[in-house]
Amino acid sequence: MDNLLEEKLKHLRQLTEEQMLAIIDKSFPCYLYDPMRYVVTAGGKKLRPLLLLMVCEALGESISHALPAAAAIEMVHDFSLVHDDIMDHDDLRRGRLTVHKKWDESVAILAGDGLLVYAFRALSRCPPQVVPRLLDMFSSSIIAVCEGQSLDKTFEQQDQVSLQEYKEMILLKTGKLFGLSCEMGAVLANGNQDQVDAMRSFGEHLGTVFQIQDDLLDLTATEMNLGKDVGSDIKEGKKTWPVLHFIQHARPDQLQAFERLTNGHVGPDQILEIVELFSKAGSIQAAEQSLRQELETLRNALQILPDNQASAALRQIVALIEKRDR
Amino acid sequence: MDNLLEEKLKHLRQLTEEQMLAIIDKSFPCYLYDPMRYVVTAGGKKLRPLLLLMVCEALGESISHALPAAAAIEMVHDFSLVHDDIMDHDDLRRGRLTVHKKWDESVAILAGDGLLVYAFRALSRCPPQVVPRLLDMFSSSIIAVCEGQSLDKTFEQQDQVSLQEYKEMILLKTGKLFGLSCEMGAVLANGNQDQVDAMRSFGEHLGTVFQIQDDLLDLTATEMNLGKDVGSDIKEGKKTWPVLHFIQHARPDQLQAFERLTNGHVGPDQILEIVELFSKAGSIQAAEQSLRQELETLRNALQILPDNQASAALRQIVALIEKRDR
Repeated sequence: MDNLLEEKLKHLRQLTEEQMLAIIDKSFPCYLYDPMRYVVTAGGKKLRPLLLLMVCEALGESISHALPAAAAIEMVHDFSLVHDDIMDHDDLRRGRLTVHKKWDESVAILAGDGLLVYAFRALSRCPPQVVPRLLDMFSSSIIAVCEGQSLDKTFEQQDQVSLQEYKEMILLKTGKLFGLSCEMGAVLANGNQDQVDAMRSFGEHLGTVFQIQDDLLDLTATEMNLGKDVGSDIKEGKKTWPVLHFIQHARPDQLQAFERLTNGHVGPDQILEIVELFSKAGSIQAAEQSLRQELETLRNALQILPDNQASAALRQIVALIEKRDR
Repeated sequence: MDNLLEEKLKHLRQLTEEQMLAIIDKSFPCYLYDPMRYVVTAGGKKLRPLLLLMVCEALGESISHALPAAAAIEMVHDFSLVHDDIMDHDDLRRGRLTVHKKWDESVAILAGDGLLVYAFRALSRCPPQVVPRLLDMFSSSIIAVCEGQSLDKTFEQQDQVSLQEYKEMILLKTGKLFGLSCEMGAVLANGNQDQVDAMRSFGEHLGTVFQIQDDLLDLTATEMNLGKDVGSDIKEGKKTWPVLHFIQHARPDQLQAFERLTNGHVGPDQILEIVELFSKAGSIQAAEQSLRQELETLRNALQILPDNQASAALRQIVALIEKRDR
């Protein structure tokens, strides 16, 4: 990555974390605040606040103006991780124990609740004239996150899920919060309605891009780059983009071969065979094709921004995402 | 109860429920919205919205103006019940199965989250000029509710809890939300700062009154009036107001007698003996004395309101609470 951009992102991540800690200004009772701080200081890419801040700057407003909103959006993301980890029985998050593992489930439910409420508290620190509008879009988008998580849990127990249903789930669970981040950046910079709409759409497509990439990388990445087992989604029986395309489009004999391969032990050899099977059915290519279309939409959406350092940084980020291999 | 007042309260409860259902305007995914509606339509006394609406009316503003805020405060209360019931492993609420019992824990976590976010959505429907101020006090008070629940869980595992700590916990867990209800009613009616402060204080003391009454009724009510086993707090080893006073003030031999009575089977005879023991140590009287003081504070706080139908209704409610025996 370009050194200058890297430095800038690091600085913005730090400012966001400082802002979160400034808003969570208490420490008692410690069974509420210790886990909240544990989550907030765990690092993470902070993509959502970065997007919010850079969109805001690209539209000519100073970053300091948007920091409470940046903190708010990251706290919402943190809230959803803490509660999702309970529901998914996950033990690790950002390389550390999840809250319900390190403490217990009650502590994790409350810490998640606390993060969500402090997110709204952060929102109340935004310029008063935009607070009603921000509150409306903020609450709508978090409702979408809850809907997406509910759908995701439903799909786990459902035999048939269509690719269309999957796309809607991704949009709700991931896209809407990315869309909100960019939209809030535009609103805080007093952007016009076209700019606000374009930025929301940009963020929503970015969410979809990330999910399709994750789904593809699970099959095609090298282990070193992925940082976890290749094929772990397949092993867990997750209904990812390529899997759903394959189920909808493969021939009966291909479907039988897939069932055979996933029924027993699924090792690196089986994953290679599955990738070949998916390729023959055109499912890898279809996912890649969707990805290219989404990336094209991303690039187009950015054209509405004026030409400056921040919009150049956003274009650079899209280029980096395009080359993402882990 | 006065028929006219009863009719009025019934009408306001209905308006609040309708408003909640109008704000929760979706039904898909059903695993999110079915449990949310299940909670919202389960009845309940709806004390918090009633207080908000009557304070607003007493200060000369129409009730329709305050309905979104009334819905918001009841949804927050519902959110806290759904999540608390998971943490406390409770099976029944308002005479029906709790959400995590009727569905499962993941559904209950998400339904609680949904109710909380929809509460903020309801707040965004309040008049824009007061939204920033309401958002600030609303989020602060819900943070207090989370802090109170965290303290309550901590106290369960803690050997020593002082009466002072218990009072602080009640204020956070119960008083703050009652205080918020009355404060919001005053703000929505454009009350002056003295009125706003007096109403918040009124609500906070009301929360304490309810808790001390609950604690006393567990010992002194008749079973028919209480609707549950008399002495159930004692049986579960809960640290209530009279218990904490007793532990702090009783003689060593009285403490030993209490320990003996609660160590084996605790039936109606043991409860009677415990009440006698508490009376001799002055703990029942001390709780009743605190209650009288709190009620006096309640009556005084209401004097700031103009004389009208709504403020008369509020005074009537305080009188009813005073005579509450179940």
